[in-house]
Amino acid sequence: MKKIAILGSTGSIGQQALDVIRALPDKLKVVALTGNKNLKLLERQIRAFQPNMFCSSVKPDIGYGGEFLSAEEIASHPEVDFVIVATAGKAGLSPTLAALRAGKTIALANKEVLVMAGEIIIREASHHQAQILPVDSEHSAIWQCLQGEESKPQRLFLTASGGPFYHYSQSQLAEVTPEQALQHPVWKMGRKVTIDSATLMNKGLEAIEAHWLFSFPFDSIEILIHPQSIVHSMVEFMDGSLKAQLSWPDMRLPIQYTLSYPWRWPNSELPRLDWNKIQSLNFEPVDYERFPCLKLAIDAGKSGGTYPAVLCAADEVAVELFLSHRIGFTDIAQIVQKTLEQHQHIPQPSLEEILGADTWAREFVTRLSAGYCTEPERRSNPGIER
Amino acid sequence: MKKIAILGSTGSIGQQALDVIRALPDKLKVVALTGNKNLKLLERQIRAFQPNMFCSSVKPDIGYGGEFLSAEEIASHPEVDFVIVATAGKAGLSPTLAALRAGKTIALANKEVLVMAGEIIIREASHHQAQILPVDSEHSAIWQCLQGEESKPQRLFLTASGGPFYHYSQSQLAEVTPEQALQHPVWKMGRKVTIDSATLMNKGLEAIEAHWLFSFPFDSIEILIHPQSIVHSMVEFMDGSLKAQLSWPDMRLPIQYTLSYPWRWPNSELPRLDWNKIQSLNFEPVDYERFPCLKLAIDAGKSGGTYPAVLCAADEVAVELFLSHRIGFTDIAQIVQKTLEQHQHIPQPSLEEILGADTWAREFVTRLSAGYCTEPERRSNPGIER
Repeated sequence: MKKIAILGSTGSIGQQALDVIRALPDKLKVVALTGNKNLKLLERQIRAFQPNMFCSSVKPDIGYGGEFLSAEEIASHPEVDFVIVATAGKAGLSPTLAALRAGKTIALANKEVLVMAGEIIIREASHHQAQILPVDSEHSAIWQCLQGEESKPQRLFLTASGGPFYHYSQSQLAEVTPEQALQHPVWKMGRKVTIDSATLMNKGLEAIEAHWLFSFPFDSIEILIHPQSIVHSMVEFMDGSLKAQLSWPDMRLPIQYTLSYPWRWPNSELPRLDWNKIQSLNFEPVDYERFPCLKLAIDAGKSGGTYPAVLCAADEVAVELFLSHRIGFTDIAQIVQKTLEQHQHIPQPSLEEILGADTWAREFVTRLSAGYCTEPERRSNPGIER
Repeated sequence: MKKIAILGSTGSIGQQALDVIRALPDKLKVVALTGNKNLKLLERQIRAFQPNMFCSSVKPDIGYGGEFLSAEEIASHPEVDFVIVATAGKAGLSPTLAALRAGKTIALANKEVLVMAGEIIIREASHHQAQILPVDSEHSAIWQCLQGEESKPQRLFLTASGGPFYHYSQSQLAEVTPEQALQHPVWKMGRKVTIDSATLMNKGLEAIEAHWLFSFPFDSIEILIHPQSIVHSMVEFMDGSLKAQLSWPDMRLPIQYTLSYPWRWPNSELPRLDWNKIQSLNFEPVDYERFPCLKLAIDAGKSGGTYPAVLCAADEVAVELFLSHRIGFTDIAQIVQKTLEQHQHIPQPSLEEILGADTWAREFVTRLSAGYCTEPERRSNPGIER
């Protein structure tokens, strides 16, 4: 019985992790759940899974006997074997560090943790012999393909569905609304990740994540558009052989693999690929021109230091502005770029310096966005200055 | 330095194995070569690689100091570390057994060895702790995908290019000439394998080979048509995840992997996949109706005993008859089927009984073929009785 804490159990990944645990009751047990603002759902989860420990932004008044602890206390608690970090944004940083310092094995779905503080996270994991297992389907694919390989691979191919607008022109992209952008063609995900998928920012963050998880140079990480999202990523070895991992796009599979690793478990609820229906798997090179967020992210990753934290923070605020119709779709990249340009970079930053850069970037974007116009304004006056 | 014997060095796989060894002179050394009737080529290879031992159907008179030994003596010689069995048909059986009994690691390209005598071969390998490494691109792919996996897979997908006639109708297939059938769309191979690829007999033999190599039941081995021959095969695990191995179709890669295993070696002569050129990978279910050889082979594999040896022998003679214009393309399957129907099956046969079944099948097909008409006869008289 693996005793599991889920940090962020009310989010998309958290809920799917609970689906996996529900399907495998003889192997997995939830001992702790943490949520944020969605108290109603957290309460339902607590009643269903009866964890010993829980945590949320407000203490829920549900007459439940479990202990109310901080996320850090839960992540490092002796009763916990395995921590699923399914929080979003910088919220996962501090509990992830707590888990690693307690030597826990963590399944990491909160990619900002590695993007913002990859160097610190990897150093602490190594120092405390804690394992970080990837949950993102791309990184899970790479990890699966690397099993049993004695030689370091030569290239990683991160596949990208391309999102709903991959064949849009520059002017069509400028007109994209939040409602359109929230309709992802393949994956069911949270709102922030869905918008990041449409701008390809998400793929850039994944490249940074892959850099840290597999200690791989950026120049050997390639992005390949693959609209069907069946090949989740590929690894090329030095003899020219590639391995790919394929499955129906369903996050429950990579979540379960972190739990079953190094074994595989049957789970009748996981979908199977049907080769009578898959006639073709398509691939095309990525277009960095129309999707500048991808290049911004990879460049921030290469520059390192506080740049990736600034990228994350600026993108998070810009996506919120876009979702609330305050800026246009293509403004997201512009805002992130301006923020990176104005940032006073700190190489090899401490955690405090990373969090300081995050705060600076959020304030900068908020000030900057005052100069941007709302969508209705822009529509009525297309020549408006920025 | 790995000291290598190549059995069948003048054939297609043998020559490509020498290409790999030539490209990696600091890691690999040829100590023995064996050929059959192509003495001129064998002499050139002996002069180029200077092996200590050699063997051929006739002792070549080349004033060369190496020892002239039998294939069995070479395969089991203490100076040999690694035996590449690149012979064809039943010629590989006896030297393969000699190598396994001497505890050698062998790279097996001669699929008839496993098809005819799988049970004996696997038993001897296990008894003498000898390793059998697959050279066929499909089996190499499966082997690569299984590395590091602790749980037994659920299904194997053998991919098949489908050969040059996959979309031919039954009546078009009946008119195929040897010259057309020898033009394989993807792979450069020997004549026998090329015809077996066009009838899909080759894929059936590969299913039997996979059954023995990976101790996998036939019902969990699936055949998938994949015209580009870039995905060389796939493995499905019990959680619904699949791994695939991809590369440019070039036999030097799987040959090299047997030599580098468990590592990978760089080799600038091996081609790389170019994802700017690969737009789509296509898949379709196999049509057992139009390609009866595939089902005949799988059924013979399931029945076991002497049936697979009879299948191999009947196919070999039928392919020769087709190549010499004595029978038509679709007659190959008919002849193999009639031979299997008339065979007196022996379950769990000895090696002698397997070779006896082989001899019987060859004689049977030769007698049977007398009743078949030559191609010119058939063309001039399409209504002719068989």
